[in-house]
Amino acid sequence: MTKKIALLGSTGSIGTQTLEVVANDPSLEVVGLTVHHNIDLLEEQIKMFHPRLVCVMDEKKALELQERVRAQGIKVEVLAGMEGLIAVATMEEADTVLTAVVGMIGLLPTIEAIKKGKVIALANKETLVTAGELVMGAAKAHQVSILPVDSEHSAIFQCLRGNEHQSISKLILTASGGPFRDYTKEMLQDVTVEAALKHPNWSMGSKITIDSASLMNKGLEVIEAKHLFDVTPEQIDVIVHRESIIHSMVEYKDGSTMAQLGLPNMMHPIAYALYYPERKPTSCVHPLDFTKVSKLTFDPPKKDLFPCLQLAYDALMVGGTMPAVLNAANEVAVDAFLKKQITFLQISQIIHEVMARHICINRPSLDEIIGIDEWARVMSRQEVQKQ
Amino acid sequence: MTKKIALLGSTGSIGTQTLEVVANDPSLEVVGLTVHHNIDLLEEQIKMFHPRLVCVMDEKKALELQERVRAQGIKVEVLAGMEGLIAVATMEEADTVLTAVVGMIGLLPTIEAIKKGKVIALANKETLVTAGELVMGAAKAHQVSILPVDSEHSAIFQCLRGNEHQSISKLILTASGGPFRDYTKEMLQDVTVEAALKHPNWSMGSKITIDSASLMNKGLEVIEAKHLFDVTPEQIDVIVHRESIIHSMVEYKDGSTMAQLGLPNMMHPIAYALYYPERKPTSCVHPLDFTKVSKLTFDPPKKDLFPCLQLAYDALMVGGTMPAVLNAANEVAVDAFLKKQITFLQISQIIHEVMARHICINRPSLDEIIGIDEWARVMSRQEVQKQ
Repeated sequence: MTKKIALLGSTGSIGTQTLEVVANDPSLEVVGLTVHHNIDLLEEQIKMFHPRLVCVMDEKKALELQERVRAQGIKVEVLAGMEGLIAVATMEEADTVLTAVVGMIGLLPTIEAIKKGKVIALANKETLVTAGELVMGAAKAHQVSILPVDSEHSAIFQCLRGNEHQSISKLILTASGGPFRDYTKEMLQDVTVEAALKHPNWSMGSKITIDSASLMNKGLEVIEAKHLFDVTPEQIDVIVHRESIIHSMVEYKDGSTMAQLGLPNMMHPIAYALYYPERKPTSCVHPLDFTKVSKLTFDPPKKDLFPCLQLAYDALMVGGTMPAVLNAANEVAVDAFLKKQITFLQISQIIHEVMARHICINRPSLDEIIGIDEWARVMSRQEVQKQ
Repeated sequence: MTKKIALLGSTGSIGTQTLEVVANDPSLEVVGLTVHHNIDLLEEQIKMFHPRLVCVMDEKKALELQERVRAQGIKVEVLAGMEGLIAVATMEEADTVLTAVVGMIGLLPTIEAIKKGKVIALANKETLVTAGELVMGAAKAHQVSILPVDSEHSAIFQCLRGNEHQSISKLILTASGGPFRDYTKEMLQDVTVEAALKHPNWSMGSKITIDSASLMNKGLEVIEAKHLFDVTPEQIDVIVHRESIIHSMVEYKDGSTMAQLGLPNMMHPIAYALYYPERKPTSCVHPLDFTKVSKLTFDPPKKDLFPCLQLAYDALMVGGTMPAVLNAANEVAVDAFLKKQITFLQISQIIHEVMARHICINRPSLDEIIGIDEWARVMSRQEVQKQ
C-alpha cells in the first residue's frame, strides 16, 4: 500500500533528505509540498514527484511559480501563504504530514493536520517547544500519533518500542557537546562565528549548529522529549557523548538501559518515521561496523560553562509560555551572534534577561503563544541593542 | 497475582541469585526446588521458601534430607533422581520453570515441562546447545515461551521487544574477551589454570570462566542464540567489548542498532525473565551511571588465537548432533585443563579432533543426543590420555 505524504518545508535539509527517501521507494508518494521562497528547487521537485498541491509562503514567488508551471503545462495547484500551508497540511489524500518547516510557522498547520487525523512526522522544533501541551493535547484528543524526526527523539522512540510507559525510569539524551566541549570559560569569551559553525559530527544549518555549540539545541530537545514522551523534567538526563554513535537511551525501572546506535545520518530517523512501525531498509542508511567503532565516551555536560541547557530546564519547570520565551529569545540572540552584534556568551545572558522579565501564562492558547513569541522577540532585540 | 516458580538447581550461582530475587518480592513464590547433592543449603532454602516439593539427585542424600525434615516436622515432599527432577519440573502449581542445573541433566525435565505448558526460564546452556531444534520445536508445538536467563541473550531479547522478526538483520553478541584477550600465541602456550580463572568482569564458576578465557563460552552462546531467536549462523556476530556494559545488540534491516546496557549483574536477566513482560525494579539491580562510564570499546575477536569460537560456528553450520559433540568434548577438555592434565591450547585441539571423527546425525532424537554425548566424552578422554 502506498503511503501518501504531505511535506511541509521541502527545500531545507530535512525536506530534501525526505524526498531522497521517497525517490528510492515506490511505496511512498508525495502529494503536497510547501516551501518558503525557493521556487527554483520546488519547480524541480514538482517535476520529479508530481504533487497535486504545493504552497509557497511568499505570495509574489507563488505567483511567479504559477506562471512557470502554467507555461510548461505542468498540472499542479499552487497556493500561497498560511492559508495554502494549512491546505497542504490538511489535504484529503495525505496519510502523513511531515513538518520540516523552520520556526513558529509550523504550529498552526500542525494543529490543523492533527484535527484532520493525519499522522504527524515532526521535524519542526518550535511546535513542541512553544506549544507542547496544546499540540500533545490535540493529538491525544484526535488519537493521532506524533512521530519524531530527529535523531535523539527517534532513538528514544525506538528504545521505548514494546515497553510500558510506566516502566520508564529516565530518558538519557546524548549530546555531542558541540565544537566547544573542551573549552574553558576564558576560551569561550572570544569564540568566533566561524569556529561555532564547525560542528564535529553533524552537518546542519547555521542556527542549529550554534544551538549545538551553546547546548541550547539539547535544551530544546529536553523540552520536546518531555512532551513527546510524557515524562517529568527530572526524568530527563543529558550526557555528553562526543562520538554521536549512541543517539539516545532509555533507562527502565528494572535498572536496564536501552540504547539506539547508528552512524550520524538524518536519513534513518526520517525513514523510521515514514515507515513506522515497519523497519524498512533504505539504500542511504548504512549500519554500524563495530570493528571500526573504536570507542564510545561519556562525560557530564558542563552546565556552568553552557548555561543555555539549564535555562531550558528552568523554562520547562516553569512551563506555560516560558519555553516559548526561551525559544524566541534564543532565536534573536543567535541571529545577533551570527551577525557579530553580540558575543557567544551574551547569547545566554540575553535569554536569561528576557525570561526574567516574562510573567508566565499557564495553559496558553495558540494566540497567546504567538503573542508572547512576538513580545519576547521585541524584548530580545532591545537586549541586543544594549550589549 | 503470585507467580509460582519451580527452580531446578537452587544451590548454584543462578539458583541462589534467583532465590534472592524471590526473597525480596512477595509476588513471587517458589513451589519446587532441586539440587544435586548440597542438602545443607537446600534445608535452609526449604525453611525460608516453604516449597511443596523438592528433589535431590543423589538418592542417598535425598534419604538423609527426608530424615532431617521429618525429625523437624517440616512439611515438604522429598524426591530423588531424574524422576524427582521431572516431577518438580512438571508440578501442577508451577507457572514458570527456571532451569539452572548444570549439564545434560537439564534436557529431559525441560522438555517435560514444555509438554505441560510451563514457561521456561532457561539458564542451562546444554539444553539449547545440544538439543536446540528438539527443544524449540517442542516449545513451538506447545506454544510455550523460552525466556533466556543470561546476560547476552536477555539483552538480545530486550532489543527485540516490540519488533518484527523479519526486520532483524544481525544479532551482535558482546564478549569481554576473557583474561587472555591481549595475549599473543606464545603467551597462550603456557597460561596457568590460576590465570585462566581470573575473569576481568564477571565472577562465575570455574568451567564457565575457562570457557570465557577460550571464547568457547561465546561460541556456545552463538549456538543458543541461533535457536532462541531463529536466525542463521551468518546472522550472528561476536564483538569483543571489554567493559561488559553493552550486554549485546541487534542490528535491524533499516540500519539501526539497538543495545541493552547495564552493570555486570546476573540479577537483572534473572528478574527480567521472572517478571517478563513487566519491567519491575529489584533492590539488587542498580542502573548505570553514565558519568562513571568513561568509555566503551570494541574489537574484533581474535579467531585465530581462540579457535573455540570458530569450532562452535563450524558445529552450528553442520548442525544435527555436532554441537552436542562440541559441548561434550569441551567439558572433558576443560575438566582436564583444570586438573592440569592438558594445556590451555590443547582444549581446542581435543575438541577439533573429536569433532573430526564424528559422523553427524541429522534431526537426532533425545536418546541419540544422549548417546552421542556419551560417545564424545569417551573419545575426548582418550584424546586427553594421548596428550
